[in-house]
Amino acid sequence: MERERLITLLEQVKNQEIDVEEALHQLKTLPYGELGYAKIDHHRELRNGYPEVIYCEGKQIDHIKGIVAHMLEHNDKNILGTRASKQVYEAICEITEEVEYHELARILVVKRQEIPKTKHKIVVVTGGTADIPVAEEAAITAEVLGNPVERLYDVGVAGLHRLLSNTDVLFSANVVIAVAGMEGALASVVGGLVDKPVIAVPTSVGYGANFNGLAALLCMLNSCASGVSVVNIDNGFGAGYLASMINKLSE
Amino acid sequence: MERERLITLLEQVKNQEIDVEEALHQLKTLPYGELGYAKIDHHRELRNGYPEVIYCEGKQIDHIKGIVAHMLEHNDKNILGTRASKQVYEAICEITEEVEYHELARILVVKRQEIPKTKHKIVVVTGGTADIPVAEEAAITAEVLGNPVERLYDVGVAGLHRLLSNTDVLFSANVVIAVAGMEGALASVVGGLVDKPVIAVPTSVGYGANFNGLAALLCMLNSCASGVSVVNIDNGFGAGYLASMINKLSE
Amino acid sequence: MERERLITLLEQVKNQEIDVEEALHQLKTLPYGELGYAKIDHHRELRNGYPEVIYCEGKQIDHIKGIVAHMLEHNDKNILGTRASKQVYEAICEITEEVEYHELARILVVKRQEIPKTKHKIVVVTGGTADIPVAEEAAITAEVLGNPVERLYDVGVAGLHRLLSNTDVLFSANVVIAVAGMEGALASVVGGLVDKPVIAVPTSVGYGANFNGLAALLCMLNSCASGVSVVNIDNGFGAGYLASMINKLSE
Amino acid sequence: MERERLITLLEQVKNQEIDVEEALHQLKTLPYGELGYAKIDHHRELRNGYPEVIYCEGKQIDHIKGIVAHMLEHNDKNILGTRASKQVYEAICEITEEVEYHELARILVVKRQEIPKTKHKIVVVTGGTADIPVAEEAAITAEVLGNPVERLYDVGVAGLHRLLSNTDVLFSANVVIAVAGMEGALASVVGGLVDKPVIAVPTSVGYGANFNGLAALLCMLNSCASGVSVVNIDNGFGAGYLASMINKLSE
Amino acid sequence: MERERLITLLEQVKNQEIDVEEALHQLKTLPYGELGYAKIDHHRELRNGYPEVIYCEGKQIDHIKGIVAHMLEHNDKNILGTRASKQVYEAICEITEEVEYHELARILVVKRQEIPKTKHKIVVVTGGTADIPVAEEAAITAEVLGNPVERLYDVGVAGLHRLLSNTDVLFSANVVIAVAGMEGALASVVGGLVDKPVIAVPTSVGYGANFNGLAALLCMLNSCASGVSVVNIDNGFGAGYLASMINKLSE
Amino acid sequence: MERERLITLLEQVKNQEIDVEEALHQLKTLPYGELGYAKIDHHRELRNGYPEVIYCEGKQIDHIKGIVAHMLEHNDKNILGTRASKQVYEAICEITEEVEYHELARILVVKRQEIPKTKHKIVVVTGGTADIPVAEEAAITAEVLGNPVERLYDVGVAGLHRLLSNTDVLFSANVVIAVAGMEGALASVVGGLVDKPVIAVPTSVGYGANFNGLAALLCMLNSCASGVSVVNIDNGFGAGYLASMINKLSE
Amino acid sequence: MERERLITLLEQVKNQEIDVEEALHQLKTLPYGELGYAKIDHHRELRNGYPEVIYCEGKQIDHIKGIVAHMLEHNDKNILGTRASKQVYEAICEITEEVEYHELARILVVKRQEIPKTKHKIVVVTGGTADIPVAEEAAITAEVLGNPVERLYDVGVAGLHRLLSNTDVLFSANVVIAVAGMEGALASVVGGLVDKPVIAVPTSVGYGANFNGLAALLCMLNSCASGVSVVNIDNGFGAGYLASMINKLSE
Amino acid sequence: MERERLITLLEQVKNQEIDVEEALHQLKTLPYGELGYAKIDHHRELRNGYPEVIYCEGKQIDHIKGIVAHMLEHNDKNILGTRASKQVYEAICEITEEVEYHELARILVVKRQEIPKTKHKIVVVTGGTADIPVAEEAAITAEVLGNPVERLYDVGVAGLHRLLSNTDVLFSANVVIAVAGMEGALASVVGGLVDKPVIAVPTSVGYGANFNGLAALLCMLNSCASGVSVVNIDNGFGAGYLASMINKLSE
Repeated sequence: MERERLITLLEQVKNQEIDVEEALHQLKTLPYGELGYAKIDHHRELRNGYPEVIYCEGKQIDHIKGIVAHMLEHNDKNILGTRASKQVYEAICEITEEVEYHELARILVVKRQEIPKTKHKIVVVTGGTADIPVAEEAAITAEVLGNPVERLYDVGVAGLHRLLSNTDVLFSANVVIAVAGMEGALASVVGGLVDKPVIAVPTSVGYGANFNGLAALLCMLNSCASGVSVVNIDNGFGAGYLASMINKLSE
Repeated sequence: MERERLITLLEQVKNQEIDVEEALHQLKTLPYGELGYAKIDHHRELRNGYPEVIYCEGKQIDHIKGIVAHMLEHNDKNILGTRASKQVYEAICEITEEVEYHELARILVVKRQEIPKTKHKIVVVTGGTADIPVAEEAAITAEVLGNPVERLYDVGVAGLHRLLSNTDVLFSANVVIAVAGMEGALASVVGGLVDKPVIAVPTSVGYGANFNGLAALLCMLNSCASGVSVVNIDNGFGAGYLASMINKLSE
Repeated sequence: MERERLITLLEQVKNQEIDVEEALHQLKTLPYGELGYAKIDHHRELRNGYPEVIYCEGKQIDHIKGIVAHMLEHNDKNILGTRASKQVYEAICEITEEVEYHELARILVVKRQEIPKTKHKIVVVTGGTADIPVAEEAAITAEVLGNPVERLYDVGVAGLHRLLSNTDVLFSANVVIAVAGMEGALASVVGGLVDKPVIAVPTSVGYGANFNGLAALLCMLNSCASGVSVVNIDNGFGAGYLASMINKLSE
Repeated sequence: MERERLITLLEQVKNQEIDVEEALHQLKTLPYGELGYAKIDHHRELRNGYPEVIYCEGKQIDHIKGIVAHMLEHNDKNILGTRASKQVYEAICEITEEVEYHELARILVVKRQEIPKTKHKIVVVTGGTADIPVAEEAAITAEVLGNPVERLYDVGVAGLHRLLSNTDVLFSANVVIAVAGMEGALASVVGGLVDKPVIAVPTSVGYGANFNGLAALLCMLNSCASGVSVVNIDNGFGAGYLASMINKLSE
Repeated sequence: MERERLITLLEQVKNQEIDVEEALHQLKTLPYGELGYAKIDHHRELRNGYPEVIYCEGKQIDHIKGIVAHMLEHNDKNILGTRASKQVYEAICEITEEVEYHELARILVVKRQEIPKTKHKIVVVTGGTADIPVAEEAAITAEVLGNPVERLYDVGVAGLHRLLSNTDVLFSANVVIAVAGMEGALASVVGGLVDKPVIAVPTSVGYGANFNGLAALLCMLNSCASGVSVVNIDNGFGAGYLASMINKLSE
Repeated sequence: MERERLITLLEQVKNQEIDVEEALHQLKTLPYGELGYAKIDHHRELRNGYPEVIYCEGKQIDHIKGIVAHMLEHNDKNILGTRASKQVYEAICEITEEVEYHELARILVVKRQEIPKTKHKIVVVTGGTADIPVAEEAAITAEVLGNPVERLYDVGVAGLHRLLSNTDVLFSANVVIAVAGMEGALASVVGGLVDKPVIAVPTSVGYGANFNGLAALLCMLNSCASGVSVVNIDNGFGAGYLASMINKLSE
Repeated sequence: MERERLITLLEQVKNQEIDVEEALHQLKTLPYGELGYAKIDHHRELRNGYPEVIYCEGKQIDHIKGIVAHMLEHNDKNILGTRASKQVYEAICEITEEVEYHELARILVVKRQEIPKTKHKIVVVTGGTADIPVAEEAAITAEVLGNPVERLYDVGVAGLHRLLSNTDVLFSANVVIAVAGMEGALASVVGGLVDKPVIAVPTSVGYGANFNGLAALLCMLNSCASGVSVVNIDNGFGAGYLASMINKLSE
Repeated sequence: MERERLITLLEQVKNQEIDVEEALHQLKTLPYGELGYAKIDHHRELRNGYPEVIYCEGKQIDHIKGIVAHMLEHNDKNILGTRASKQVYEAICEITEEVEYHELARILVVKRQEIPKTKHKIVVVTGGTADIPVAEEAAITAEVLGNPVERLYDVGVAGLHRLLSNTDVLFSANVVIAVAGMEGALASVVGGLVDKPVIAVPTSVGYGANFNGLAALLCMLNSCASGVSVVNIDNGFGAGYLASMINKLSE
């Protein structure tokens, strides 16, 4: 896929260092590990500081164990398991001692490398206390990826002074993750205050006409503040990962 | 339907002032005027300061003329025509000179009585400039019903300082009408700032995932601020009418 | 945020009674109590008769206990816990004896002050028996806030005489809360009968094309009766709080 | 398809009055007229008093003319064209003089037979004036099919006394058609008052969260009154046809 | 509500047989039994053969017992409990021995009167085996109301010959109830075959894009066959009740 | 229903080999087995290699046993039970030993005939590991129907090289089944790569704005690639059955 | 992308017939024609009998002309323009005389090659007359691709005998395209009758709760008949293209 | 609102350089220009290179002229008018000569300052030709804000080689904007290929079950690729603005 790789391969064929059959084989077998039930992507390994990521929900525990074992064997990257239940954590404990578990965030981390910290900070804000699990998924993801994170929780727009009293925290951020359920208005207000990218995460917190996060999602997509974009409902991991990607552009 | 009326009627029957046939007839014919295509409700006339109201949209112009003519004949109440096009206005001009027309708000008023002003004020706020037509429908309705109205337009949450610089206006209100499209977050922020009833009016201003006002509607219904209730999308009249009803409780 | 406060603070700075650093600090720390996982809003304390409110659903029991304990320490306001399970109640019993629990309404009250009763009455009506839990949430909220409440349950429009036989109760209200599931037509009928504000609460009672309260919600939003506004599905607390706010305008 | 027909045909085959090829042919060609772009169903002709029906919307005018011409040739049944524009009417005028046009209801009738009147009456009620076109589609359909129809228009639930003053009309019906837009509550109220079948027709009259009739539709489907069933939004014809079918069960 | 009643009452007042206070009292207390948590409608008692009906879902068992006990005391009508769980049945067994329970249909019947059978038949058809519980709710309701019912189950349109082989059953019906989930096409096909009213009941049977019966509901509402109307998803009772009401028009 | 059958029957009637009554009876009783709660379709038996299929979800275990027993008695076709729980499997074990159970796919097979293998291959691809149960339902269905199946799992578009490295597998297919949840983009990418029919199966794998498979469903329906069609969410059986039907066109 | 191509290219590099730069260039420039505003895919040219396809809706006429001109220059394939307005047709007439236009189907064909006819037939059925434009888009697409097509229009399920009288046409098909709006039940009925693949095309024909084709779409997706798959609403082209692809598997 | 400003103001009050009244006044009047119908935000002026932005849709032309005139007077910032019709452009031409108009993108630029170019590039990709207007809105917005932009149009996933042949363009981006309608799969594929932030813009291009961009929106929100976030349907401006904000983090 990558240009450099393709050039190298073609050069090798041209120089007859490898033959055509081999070249074809390499094109097919290099980029991932085949487990039958899963194809483990080693592609991202090449990037500095990026862990291997496993979305655990809906996968059988044996499969998750197999995937982690495969990763442990093939490189020394950190491993991040999202939406991991306590059972998953216990299963992974059987194959490695290095694992730590964040119960609220349902994240599992196998840390095998020290990731250098970025200079700039990501700030994670929530509308309410009930949004904290999703916020923690975002915060811990960003931390595992090497970003300093500051949390500013329970600053929903119905008590605006709680947010306004903390504008210095907001203004210190390089990227903001705004996590809110119910009406999700927090993203617009934050987006209007800061001039840094705001990643909005609607949560399924709420009831009735909230329709499991739809209200917050639509609210955030229609934000009248510029600089706001949205990820899926409850997708703390996606927000943390993207925030890190953006934050590292400043390094 | 009303207790007093029923008592009076029953007393009259008992005292044989009217007979049973007549009583039955009165029960059936008193409360409204029959035009065939419409039954004009005079029921609300009895309340002080309430105009007759005609929702013009979807009605044929001849029917509207007929209804207004009937009203002009039967009492001297003010008449309020909502969602009235310019053609409707011109048609009404043919039967009365007293009519005035608010083009932006699409409201038509036939003023035949002076309505006493209330002591307290209603404040109408909008998120943006494009919400003004709906806001004016609310404001003019409230004014016709006798309420002083202060307008605070274009104070959407993406530029929060515009709203915060005007908190004294907000705090001076007895009732607030918050009109906003796009994400509709204004209602929550206003609801968090004031301790008076906030009537939220979602507007169909916006595009895409706004779905013609659905985003603002859901946002407002899920408001995390207490004291906020919601009327139909673009229903400026309903908000103005209800605000007046609430405001008059303080008289 | 409030004008008076800002003036006082600026005056103090001007008179050099406090220095700039201190002023800044006050602006930041005064308005709420910081618990890390929650920022407790003391802002509303200043208003007469308003309790502290905790929405319990989705919060961890330890957090709720922490919040209540913080409130008990910092003032003598009443405390209202909504959507509180029996476990929450039992946990609060461990830290205060003053708590009482309304099981059907899932409301928890810590009563530490006597709230003066308003002169006017709020009437809560329901379409059916199954709407009673939501209605009770509204009724008890309004009562805790100092309003006399009269209940009129199971008067749905399919048996209209049950409602019409009780119009005197309806007419005695200063504010009406109309609670209904299924098709939610009650709000329109009540709105057409009374000339006081009607707060409509759709409930998730029903099945099939009710879509968990969506049918009742849409019905109420489209009410052809003036003076009706709507809160979120099953939001009894919001209706009770708003009804109280409106009712107190008459005092 | 019909048992008697099948028996007759089989008997004829058995008695060798017709041969197998012929029988097959009859099974295929008898029941409809083939125009290429349309297959005209003569099946219903056999029923007494039923007209041929053409749903005109979305059909090309030439096709409609072709269909009517075919019908005029093959029998002397009445013809009913629904959703017919004025252009359609003018086109049909070119091929027959017997046609009459109901503009408001967009119905076109070619009357060639006198249909005997039923003894019992159908009552058509509407919530508002704007619902009249759909109501007329229902009423005229029922009349063309031989039913006496009484109209009771503009009796929406927001002014309940207008409906209650006319309960004698309602009680005189054998079948009621309740036509309403906005919140559609009329069907439930009528269904609670009468003990005859109520056919509810939601209309697309309204705006905002009405979503083109969805609100009224859901309201009517969730009616808490027994004896109510629903047809498609704005489907006046369907209601009139079904009402006639039910009404004729009493003959 | 009823004209005759009103006349009688007015006559009595006129003749001074009762005084005004008494008349008012009668107007208020006659039509239902007040239990506090429920208002029991005796209004329908006057009609021949109609039972008292209790929708049990969402009601507390003590309330249901109280309602049944009240009914048992006040008249000798049959009682029909719909959506009744086995616990409800057991609770009712404690207060009367006459109760029988239809588990599949979740219907409970207290039979105290013999209801005369109608001459004409109702036919209940289902698309599949999984639709039977809803169909049985319809069938038993119709039977309790005095109608002979014939069942024709598992005749979905994917195996059309199963339906076509039973057209004689269909043609013998005075009213047809068509119960189907998945795509709900059965109603259209049946509606095209018979010339009697078809009551379509969408069921929540299915998965995926069925969206809990929405697909079948929309399909049935859009039926291209005339004579079809629709009740709420899974509303077997409503269909059975309406079918009986229609069927009795033929008596 | 079938032409040949109809001819034969008519010929027999004509030749007086059977009489009319008998012919009518045959038309009614031949095509299915009547169990009361189910009508078992033997119609498809005549086709070579097609098994009897039972959709088990929502059916009572006794009914399923009854249906299987009936099938075992009446012919020697293979039997396929879809959406079969382990309890269903155990119940069937009691009446036949030939049954095998695929737990992940929830499929139950009673194999009594050897089905000849087709020459061409069906390829089943999935976006992720969590889509495998639905994919297996498709794959096993196709295998039971006699098709060689190759599986290509976990080749979602976010790691495109995993798919591109396997284009030779894709190109070897006669029909492709593309199974994906989340955003469902796999179907479009596969559809753009191959020139064989692609059957897209959206799965309910995902969360939040996935809305139980709706996102994947809409994505697949809007595929910009030609040659893609869609079956219901999670409908692995339907895809496998259709793929087999298409694949056999090449034999 | 294609294996053979990759091998050839690698061989050429190996044999030093072309150098690495050139190979890279070829990989990038070969597969499509670059017009700036469009990238014309010549990839499919290699397949026998496949035309170039342009989806015209939403494209500027100048762009369409540019694309057609580019195609005319680079090969002698047939060209198919779908959703082409009459203006588009007239614009294309300016650059080639070979173009023919199917107005009802809004299809434009530039025929430059004779495509060999397949042995087997595709049958296109519609529920009604108003579905014909979509059906014609499917039929003409299939014909241009070389398939004999038989049309069977206006055979909707409400008049089942029209369909059943034509089962011989249905049974003669190798692939069936079922086009229907309103409730879309046609697909299920056809799917139950034939044992060939059925491609269901929902149309936006209908009104009210049809929601622009959503009702038919959901109905078809939930079809209880096996062998049915669905394409987008009104997507006649997609159905015709896929039907051709499937039909050619039999050659 | 901003900390520095607040400190300065408080210092001035403390030093008695300004008095309390004046301070209050400043807090209220500084941050925006008041036009009655609009409050022009000068807040963002302070940031380097940011233009004043006017969303023109739904605003009256006189208002837009007034706003632009106000801006021209008060500073020398560039002005960006989005969703501007040709009439708006012509109206602005009357008050300034510096305006240029991008018709396809409906953007209007008044350029009064040279903005320094960033070092890094933004790449805008589209799925099809019909997505170009939205893409141009994004591209021109980003250019006006000082970013080099490279366009890569018509690289939808159905012809994957068009995209893969241009991976070098993709890999050269610091931020990618992916614009696509129909199924919107482009965002996932691009997100899987690059390791830079991807801003996904769903467009309303498509038909049928696309539901005006809903399909693409849901697809993008559910993207299985990390690093993708979403803005509102057709919101090219929002994407361009955010991309610029992110891109400038690298400077």
